[in-house]
Amino acid sequence: MKRPPLAHPFDDDKLKEECGIFGVIGVGDAANFVALGLHALQHRGQEAGGIVSHDPNSGFNSARRFGYVRDNFTKADVMSTLPGPLAIGHVRYSTAGSKGATAIRDVQPFFGEFSMGGAAIAHNGNLTNAAALRRELIERGSIFQSSSDSECIIHLMARSIQKTIPERMKDALRRVEGAFSVVAMTRTKLIGVRDPLGVRPLVLGRLGDQAWALSSETCALDIVGAEFVREIEPGEMVVIEDGKITSTRPFGAPASRFCIFEQVYFSRPDSIIGGRSVYETRRQIGVELAREAPVEADLVCPVPDSGTPAAIGYAHESGIPFGMGIIRNQYMGRTFIEPTESIRNMGVRLKLNVNRALIKGKRVILVDDSVVRGTTSRKIKDMILDAGAAEVHFRIASPPTAWPCFYGVDTPERSKLLAATMSEDEMRDWIGVNSLKFISLDGLYRAAGEAGGRDPKAPKFCDACFSGDYPIVPSDKVEEGFEMKAAE
Amino acid sequence: MKRPPLAHPFDDDKLKEECGIFGVIGVGDAANFVALGLHALQHRGQEAGGIVSHDPNSGFNSARRFGYVRDNFTKADVMSTLPGPLAIGHVRYSTAGSKGATAIRDVQPFFGEFSMGGAAIAHNGNLTNAAALRRELIERGSIFQSSSDSECIIHLMARSIQKTIPERMKDALRRVEGAFSVVAMTRTKLIGVRDPLGVRPLVLGRLGDQAWALSSETCALDIVGAEFVREIEPGEMVVIEDGKITSTRPFGAPASRFCIFEQVYFSRPDSIIGGRSVYETRRQIGVELAREAPVEADLVCPVPDSGTPAAIGYAHESGIPFGMGIIRNQYMGRTFIEPTESIRNMGVRLKLNVNRALIKGKRVILVDDSVVRGTTSRKIKDMILDAGAAEVHFRIASPPTAWPCFYGVDTPERSKLLAATMSEDEMRDWIGVNSLKFISLDGLYRAAGEAGGRDPKAPKFCDACFSGDYPIVPSDKVEEGFEMKAAE
Amino acid sequence: MKRPPLAHPFDDDKLKEECGIFGVIGVGDAANFVALGLHALQHRGQEAGGIVSHDPNSGFNSARRFGYVRDNFTKADVMSTLPGPLAIGHVRYSTAGSKGATAIRDVQPFFGEFSMGGAAIAHNGNLTNAAALRRELIERGSIFQSSSDSECIIHLMARSIQKTIPERMKDALRRVEGAFSVVAMTRTKLIGVRDPLGVRPLVLGRLGDQAWALSSETCALDIVGAEFVREIEPGEMVVIEDGKITSTRPFGAPASRFCIFEQVYFSRPDSIIGGRSVYETRRQIGVELAREAPVEADLVCPVPDSGTPAAIGYAHESGIPFGMGIIRNQYMGRTFIEPTESIRNMGVRLKLNVNRALIKGKRVILVDDSVVRGTTSRKIKDMILDAGAAEVHFRIASPPTAWPCFYGVDTPERSKLLAATMSEDEMRDWIGVNSLKFISLDGLYRAAGEAGGRDPKAPKFCDACFSGDYPIVPSDKVEEGFEMKAAE
Amino acid sequence: MKRPPLAHPFDDDKLKEECGIFGVIGVGDAANFVALGLHALQHRGQEAGGIVSHDPNSGFNSARRFGYVRDNFTKADVMSTLPGPLAIGHVRYSTAGSKGATAIRDVQPFFGEFSMGGAAIAHNGNLTNAAALRRELIERGSIFQSSSDSECIIHLMARSIQKTIPERMKDALRRVEGAFSVVAMTRTKLIGVRDPLGVRPLVLGRLGDQAWALSSETCALDIVGAEFVREIEPGEMVVIEDGKITSTRPFGAPASRFCIFEQVYFSRPDSIIGGRSVYETRRQIGVELAREAPVEADLVCPVPDSGTPAAIGYAHESGIPFGMGIIRNQYMGRTFIEPTESIRNMGVRLKLNVNRALIKGKRVILVDDSVVRGTTSRKIKDMILDAGAAEVHFRIASPPTAWPCFYGVDTPERSKLLAATMSEDEMRDWIGVNSLKFISLDGLYRAAGEAGGRDPKAPKFCDACFSGDYPIVPSDKVEEGFEMKAAE
Repeated sequence: MKRPPLAHPFDDDKLKEECGIFGVIGVGDAANFVALGLHALQHRGQEAGGIVSHDPNSGFNSARRFGYVRDNFTKADVMSTLPGPLAIGHVRYSTAGSKGATAIRDVQPFFGEFSMGGAAIAHNGNLTNAAALRRELIERGSIFQSSSDSECIIHLMARSIQKTIPERMKDALRRVEGAFSVVAMTRTKLIGVRDPLGVRPLVLGRLGDQAWALSSETCALDIVGAEFVREIEPGEMVVIEDGKITSTRPFGAPASRFCIFEQVYFSRPDSIIGGRSVYETRRQIGVELAREAPVEADLVCPVPDSGTPAAIGYAHESGIPFGMGIIRNQYMGRTFIEPTESIRNMGVRLKLNVNRALIKGKRVILVDDSVVRGTTSRKIKDMILDAGAAEVHFRIASPPTAWPCFYGVDTPERSKLLAATMSEDEMRDWIGVNSLKFISLDGLYRAAGEAGGRDPKAPKFCDACFSGDYPIVPSDKVEEGFEMKAAE
Repeated sequence: MKRPPLAHPFDDDKLKEECGIFGVIGVGDAANFVALGLHALQHRGQEAGGIVSHDPNSGFNSARRFGYVRDNFTKADVMSTLPGPLAIGHVRYSTAGSKGATAIRDVQPFFGEFSMGGAAIAHNGNLTNAAALRRELIERGSIFQSSSDSECIIHLMARSIQKTIPERMKDALRRVEGAFSVVAMTRTKLIGVRDPLGVRPLVLGRLGDQAWALSSETCALDIVGAEFVREIEPGEMVVIEDGKITSTRPFGAPASRFCIFEQVYFSRPDSIIGGRSVYETRRQIGVELAREAPVEADLVCPVPDSGTPAAIGYAHESGIPFGMGIIRNQYMGRTFIEPTESIRNMGVRLKLNVNRALIKGKRVILVDDSVVRGTTSRKIKDMILDAGAAEVHFRIASPPTAWPCFYGVDTPERSKLLAATMSEDEMRDWIGVNSLKFISLDGLYRAAGEAGGRDPKAPKFCDACFSGDYPIVPSDKVEEGFEMKAAE
Repeated sequence: MKRPPLAHPFDDDKLKEECGIFGVIGVGDAANFVALGLHALQHRGQEAGGIVSHDPNSGFNSARRFGYVRDNFTKADVMSTLPGPLAIGHVRYSTAGSKGATAIRDVQPFFGEFSMGGAAIAHNGNLTNAAALRRELIERGSIFQSSSDSECIIHLMARSIQKTIPERMKDALRRVEGAFSVVAMTRTKLIGVRDPLGVRPLVLGRLGDQAWALSSETCALDIVGAEFVREIEPGEMVVIEDGKITSTRPFGAPASRFCIFEQVYFSRPDSIIGGRSVYETRRQIGVELAREAPVEADLVCPVPDSGTPAAIGYAHESGIPFGMGIIRNQYMGRTFIEPTESIRNMGVRLKLNVNRALIKGKRVILVDDSVVRGTTSRKIKDMILDAGAAEVHFRIASPPTAWPCFYGVDTPERSKLLAATMSEDEMRDWIGVNSLKFISLDGLYRAAGEAGGRDPKAPKFCDACFSGDYPIVPSDKVEEGFEMKAAE
Repeated sequence: MKRPPLAHPFDDDKLKEECGIFGVIGVGDAANFVALGLHALQHRGQEAGGIVSHDPNSGFNSARRFGYVRDNFTKADVMSTLPGPLAIGHVRYSTAGSKGATAIRDVQPFFGEFSMGGAAIAHNGNLTNAAALRRELIERGSIFQSSSDSECIIHLMARSIQKTIPERMKDALRRVEGAFSVVAMTRTKLIGVRDPLGVRPLVLGRLGDQAWALSSETCALDIVGAEFVREIEPGEMVVIEDGKITSTRPFGAPASRFCIFEQVYFSRPDSIIGGRSVYETRRQIGVELAREAPVEADLVCPVPDSGTPAAIGYAHESGIPFGMGIIRNQYMGRTFIEPTESIRNMGVRLKLNVNRALIKGKRVILVDDSVVRGTTSRKIKDMILDAGAAEVHFRIASPPTAWPCFYGVDTPERSKLLAATMSEDEMRDWIGVNSLKFISLDGLYRAAGEAGGRDPKAPKFCDACFSGDYPIVPSDKVEEGFEMKAAE
């Protein structure tokens, strides 16, 4: 039951999405569908996963495990404990606010038994007033099982005086602030909700006549053979029962501020957002970047795998050949050897190796998705130069990441973000490359389908990590001392 | 200790390399280096791995495990049992001749205690007279520990009357027929040998002044920071002791017949063979293929990941845009859910998903490395057509695979090979695509650096799987009834 | 994390004690002491165990496992997670009220975080109004983590308006009905409480000057080298902090009704109750039984191991030789082979074997501690007769068990108790022995130190399982339809 | 696959029997019977166990595990791999000659594939010329799989020129010296052999008409419901096939020298040797001891569990009351907590606790089976005195153990045996008791049924551990420098 140590050689230099959620109603063996869906959402969280199912005979059942979906939720001895036509599941990276190691009790879905029956919920996002809510709930006699902020929702539901579980969920979610997409279930209902701004994604799919699925991304609908119907809208709650969907708007009339980093990095390239594939948006980022930041060179080389679509776009737009100058070891897992003295610092080679014969003597454009701390960029630059590259030019498929996210993404504190402390030129010199260019925020909006770029009065996306413009006040963090950007 | 079931959705339609081998002498913690090297060679065998080390205080120690290197040979409780400056290791897919499941006792390296001390050997390849040798050895009183043919070598060594282990190895290897690269060790020596034709690869690397490494491929030298020195030559034995190398030629004067499928598929693209990267050879295959088999289309799309370099070459030569129309799930492991009725046949989606928005309405050229049974090609064609492609054209980066390999590659029997029973046009119709073209054998030789194509009198490579021209008579198989190609 | 199946060949015919509890304060590594203490209390519950410790640096930590203490709480990787000078623990058999399998979340101690800090509790006994309390608490918004009735206590504490944890415990325990001994801890305090009648045991021990221990039995004080100080009195709460003990009486003035079955079977023979060893009480039961129910015979033979002290007493009083006619397999664990057709019904031989040479031709008196369903008694009789005994006389060291226990002992429902449906003569015939005699209730009281036997107006013990005289009304059970004995 | 550390608090002060063996032929699921038989023989070896079975469809199968039979050979996933009507098994303590930790490959049965088919053997005993045989076999080209001396037998069989496996076994066993009972199997035959002196036990049992069993002791026949037929005689080989037994005498005419320590300690008390139960022999030892070494006292108390029968005999003969002054923790397994500073030296309490109320103020006679190093005797004496005993008198149910065993019992080297370095009075003073008396060798023979005591010219038993009279020269040990007792 031990969690693997987290030791991706490069993972300290990526932002981490915190969760993927999936639910199904109306099939014979819902938990198997949920396992497949979570497998397709594994990129959103690799630390742990959980599934709750309901069966009229055996009631609610659950299984929660550390590790990959494929290693846990594929075994007959686990899956046979999760019968029934209704199930929801969750994969997670880590919980904001969790001090130290995650315990298995922190793994969602969470479950509560109410007087009118049980309910389970799976939450993607982050509540910005969870600390205050938790204090209040404990004061009033609630006993928390986990260190997860998401547990507040189920306690708020337990204390609601409403008579049905969907009404109790509305009560609870009106009390929370922050970003949330939620998939929940009762004995007979599958429920999906997005926060008023729709920061985190949630989509609806259909399986034949009677069965429905809810998923963080469309790629998980594909894996179970579900047809993509539509996105759940910002501020919408859907309740599915007996094959029928009911939609309500519990939170008034909100405006959409979808997370733009989903477009840049989090979502899978084969998922569809706003009617086109994420791959296409990323390829278009490369096109924009080639226009904004051209350079004379011999080879456009992606930092695998996330930089590949933008590199293809850059190569196509610039006419410079595309080549795989860095090869990724496909058997790299979460952990590797604890280095002894003689092999210390070889960590980077566990995951990537340079294609020396291709790189040697060339002027290389490296296309990466983002720069967080910058430590990885330096190591890759070293590898490329060691292999004999004549020049190294970094092109980054997102603007400088200068502000932390409080809406469900695990970001270093502001002082650790390279772009919060250095100018673009300083970053170029610190990394040690011939040139370094980021796409502009307007260019990113254009690539994401906003032909006019970003409208500062009504931006279509949440871009706080780049702009410092937080659409929801992070009240717990402000109380802890976080300084928001001064109004301009 | 249970082996995971083998259930790659597509793996029944790939040829499998059977082994990777690696050895190190002269470093403080040789087993850690071997673990890293085996991790880099994991693509050559994922079923199991083993390491033997020697330490002057504790003697020989070994660990053998089912599963990935990263999951077994990274743990302190395993690695601490493998001290010392000298170690060898092995990763395996499966052993030809093993009936049924592999037992842990079949996992190499094998070890024998002789009167002059112990020796361990790790073998990549296949012995074509192993059945006859095994019968003879049992008759004379040898007790086999495994079902592996490779164990014959250690018994032949045990019965040699030579006084040193290298001389006993020569005795033993002169008795065997087939393809073999062997890494072996005594208490003080690291030994490497290749069969007279050099069918399987083996390279030499250097770590500083005193330490040396032997490896199946150069990519594993990179991971441990070793400098690539040279290939071990066909028919050569090297013995490394006290930092010095001695080279001998136990088998007379052979001619090189290196396995051409290493170029096409087995070796990692960042490995170097014959002075250039495998990636470059594969990209060049794409170039040749574009010249031999052009077609009007909108998109060149690789079947990931092995088709990618050839697709890049094809796109560059043809001028048709390159795009990732198929997305691979990077969290796919060896196993997944045992399908229930309702989710049966969705296996393919576990590993690959179509990038629908990119494919829709386009004439698509799919570039794949090879066609074995053809079953996967049909499924991929279905996915692409379901996503709305206007036309599908397959281009294959190797000639038709029409003959089984007996030299260390796990091939279906001849009647299961699509190309053994159908013409190119029949295959096209059976797969159901608009066109299907394979690279010619001459084109493949050109891409691999032989400007004049294949010289039928003295071919540079072993290409028996394409040509039926077997450079070593597979005597056990002939005895079992295999019919070789009639001389032309 | 899978619980072993419960398959003692004879365990369906023994009453099961449900819990052992142990706590320590003031030593460097309290959890190690608790593990030892729980090991000594393992006879009180073998299904699972848990330990919570507190350390000023790392706060509260816990570990809960299925299986024996010795197999779980002896491993460095578990014990190193439980640092600190204060710890409590619990071993359990099963929870009354748990439908189906126990989950790990049902394993105590339970933990709650309150506004003034955390608290953990370990409970031995059974609450007779738990179902009603649970309904009320859920109605008011509490979320239960387990199916255990004991969890009510921590929720009642969470809802108390008292300012300190001991005061909240008093609030909570005044609301519960039934039998309970509780060991609890805060960050700085170790707390012990017994219910007003003192049905379940709890003793206090001292370790040097500053450290104290609380334990279900004195045998667990012996194992950690603690000096037995005194029993916690019925209705007493002790709070230990900074090496000092404070005692209060939260429940008014109660009268002691200690469980008499602890004397007969549950407690370990080397524990001390009421100033003398349990072994001596049991030996004295044998003496009384020999006086009450003499018979002419050749051998007094215990049913091992629990019948041994009474058999020694019977043999000594009667002058008939004592011998081990039944040998117990000391390697018998909780489980054994799932019987195939050919070996079915040999279950009894896994645990016991007859000493044939000793038994053959003899008139044998078998001394057992109790008869519950009677199934085991029949099997043992068969074994003894098969071995050639001339006569078999059963002597039982307790009165007929005719009523279920609702105070923390797992008893079959009344209709399954042999003595609830048959007279002594009927039981003798059903078991098939030459004679069958139980000790009288007065005789049992005399053996337990009450020279005058049982005083029906103020019995010293709870003897409801023999007499039907329940000192606490089992209200949940009465609500479910249980019929108490009519007043005489 | 990790072996539990060996940490019996007292086990360093007991002699250890090295093996139990069991085989069955002619039942539907032979491996289940073997598992039951090995469970009943677990006292003969607790470190590891193995079973080999043969089934006409799947051939030979095997499973070998560290730990108890009940924990390994009860699981469906293990037992289902061992089908067929013929199986043999082995439990072991440790192998003489094994340096350091036992590896799983050292666990028997051993298996060899010969030209006429496979054979498996399980060996109880020790070969006194194994080192010389092993050297010779390696010189001739045999490769040993294990560090076990028993493996010599299978290699000698492999090199025999005989045409059948039983004949090859005879060839092999004529070459070995020492003590051995062997159970072996081919595809169709179950074979049992005892060495010419019959030092180690082996008995024959019958299951119905067609099925037979071979076992180290009769108690294992009882557990599977087999009828005890007779002992295999010294120097006899039986071959069982198709329900029929053939008996031969491959080793000429030997004289029986059965191990007398089997009577004293190794065998289970319910086993039958020479027509009467071991329990009765041990009780009779107590009777003899009471006659040889009377003392005035208040209580006869066994050191549990092995001293119990002799204590019963002593009490009966002396008229002094028998009582259980020391209580054994029945949940003590092989391991317990790694002691921290504060709980160091409490090891003894994990296994035994004193029944203080019984001991206090009494003159106590402690009856133990043997004294090896004497360390345990001192600790028990301390416990008894701490509990307030007035006097402590040790009575030992065997003569002083002054010589090591080389025939299959794990004994400390001679200098570590208390009786090899001290007189009886010195031992009494070193242990610190009021008196210490051992039974005489003649008394022991009388108790074992030899009315006339020991005949020095033709002793009926091997009593080398007491007398230094070795019936087989321990040639490997003599070569290593062991000095035998000078002829008198």
